[in-house]
Amino acid sequence: MIEDSLNSRTNLSELGEFGLIDLLTKNLDIKLSSTVKGIGDDAAVMDFQDKQILVTTDLLVEGVHFDLAYTPLKHLGYKAVMVNLSDVYAMNGVATQITVSIAVSNRFPVEALEELYAGIETASKIYNVDVVGGDTTSSTKGLLISITALGMASKEDVVYRSGAKPNDLLVVSGDLGAAYMGLQILEREKAVFKVNPNSQPDLDAYTYLIERQLKPEARKDIPPLLKKLEVKPTSMIDISDGLSSEVIHLCKNSGVGVNLYEDKIPLDPTVIAACEEFEVDSTTIALSGGEDYELLFTVSQEDFPKIKANPHLSIIGHMTEAGEGMHLITRGNTKIPLIAKGWNAMDKEN
Amino acid sequence: MIEDSLNSRTNLSELGEFGLIDLLTKNLDIKLSSTVKGIGDDAAVMDFQDKQILVTTDLLVEGVHFDLAYTPLKHLGYKAVMVNLSDVYAMNGVATQITVSIAVSNRFPVEALEELYAGIETASKIYNVDVVGGDTTSSTKGLLISITALGMASKEDVVYRSGAKPNDLLVVSGDLGAAYMGLQILEREKAVFKVNPNSQPDLDAYTYLIERQLKPEARKDIPPLLKKLEVKPTSMIDISDGLSSEVIHLCKNSGVGVNLYEDKIPLDPTVIAACEEFEVDSTTIALSGGEDYELLFTVSQEDFPKIKANPHLSIIGHMTEAGEGMHLITRGNTKIPLIAKGWNAMDKEN
Repeated sequence: MIEDSLNSRTNLSELGEFGLIDLLTKNLDIKLSSTVKGIGDDAAVMDFQDKQILVTTDLLVEGVHFDLAYTPLKHLGYKAVMVNLSDVYAMNGVATQITVSIAVSNRFPVEALEELYAGIETASKIYNVDVVGGDTTSSTKGLLISITALGMASKEDVVYRSGAKPNDLLVVSGDLGAAYMGLQILEREKAVFKVNPNSQPDLDAYTYLIERQLKPEARKDIPPLLKKLEVKPTSMIDISDGLSSEVIHLCKNSGVGVNLYEDKIPLDPTVIAACEEFEVDSTTIALSGGEDYELLFTVSQEDFPKIKANPHLSIIGHMTEAGEGMHLITRGNTKIPLIAKGWNAMDKEN
Repeated sequence: MIEDSLNSRTNLSELGEFGLIDLLTKNLDIKLSSTVKGIGDDAAVMDFQDKQILVTTDLLVEGVHFDLAYTPLKHLGYKAVMVNLSDVYAMNGVATQITVSIAVSNRFPVEALEELYAGIETASKIYNVDVVGGDTTSSTKGLLISITALGMASKEDVVYRSGAKPNDLLVVSGDLGAAYMGLQILEREKAVFKVNPNSQPDLDAYTYLIERQLKPEARKDIPPLLKKLEVKPTSMIDISDGLSSEVIHLCKNSGVGVNLYEDKIPLDPTVIAACEEFEVDSTTIALSGGEDYELLFTVSQEDFPKIKANPHLSIIGHMTEAGEGMHLITRGNTKIPLIAKGWNAMDKEN
């Protein structure tokens, strides 16, 4: 068999029929009772009893969503899973299965795909999801990963984007902007490396930022935390494009307005430091940076006591009547219209 | 709004936030009661009551799986759906939902994607499936389509690849080899066109072959037909890679051998004529051509009277003890080992 080493190079064409799939999926055990049949038939078979099924899908394209100059393939595999699971958690569900399809050009040796799958496997273990299928094909250029995630939730637990009411509190998990600043660090180091390949960058100060960019964690913990706190959000979404874009989604889907308070937006100290270094406004970064994979949700005012002291959660605003519009209340107490940034018309999930 | 014409060219970047998705998905209505929430949230929500869920996924890559020189985008969209639904039917299930992800380079105008989606929409209407989500992103090169199909079946109806027993009859729907010969016709015409762009090919004689290649139909009708006939297959698979490869799958997954009779393989007269014209062996084409999207299954000997006269079904062999091996019995009554052809290690679904 092939040596488990990045120094070895096995050409993709050297593997026989189904050899590649067998090699890549050999460590993917079935863990869940809801998985009746995983890889190896025309379709996977699942049994969710009386639960509702959640399905979401994302494409990651080399040169568009990731740059292999600074993205380890293992991290890429991990992140590709996170991006999808995050959408399941944003429905207040439990992620259960994924399918993984990859299109890859001949420039990638088998060992590179093994690294990618190692990241997928790690993510599936930590997040307790089964890999139940996929498709592996050649591409004329680069690497593309298409993952579909399935999840489940009791009908009464599912949270849509559409249930926010005026006076509901707007809440976000974790902190924002770090993934975007991590990307800025990595892009800067790539530019430095191009000029001087012998430079030895000291990135210790940026560990958190880089980790948030390369190896984000989906907030699997938030749905059970909310359950434990006896809070059911009235609406929820995950933050992939940036806070402002996602807040606007909740408002438009729910038919409400919002007052978002600049001074309440949770920022890690390293984000603030990096923003100063790069001379960018940290609020802008949090609003428009994206890729945080935190959960943004609304809860009834009554639930305020249940969440106010929770270290994972920040109350950042409140919903209003739709007619009042969507606004950011700045630190200087100025009310400015919230606009969607950080989006790209050609990278939209539906 | 944009004119519904292939002559108009709207650059992908001209559409605003979510404009492209809105445009492409505006005609996709929800038809099924199992679809609780389709496009428009973090994940789609389905409710299948007590049914088991089937999930399958396929990637189609420009330059690998299709050539836009002779593949109309509308047909491509239709075929991309068929390829996936076929896998659901091969589990003896009912296809219910699909997600559609596309990666596309800037060389495609919006109108091209509208054509693609028109084919997807047509397929979803005819086959009664809901499009419940997807992802649209830019690619650095070409067009890639990733579709995931969901289906459902009662637990007792699901048919795996693994249940064939010695003496079971091997049955195939429809006829074989036409899609492959259609591809040969199209490739020939493309070559002719390169030499003489003014040539006006007369393809009337090849209509069936070309249609089987460009616009295949998945065998949605077979699971209900079998139900009506009170036949439950012991194993089943769809023919995407070629008959021999799929027969071998059934044998290996079921732990049996097979005797496949050359003279029983169903061939359309136009396939036989095209094979003569191209000077290729029609049996080889049926065994190795692929893309037929017919269903191959095994049934107990007892069910012979129920299926023998059915015009949709051909009995092409019988299963044996594994130790007897996998053989083709030729017209000359010679027994030759069945080998898998038509596969490509880099295009395997798992």
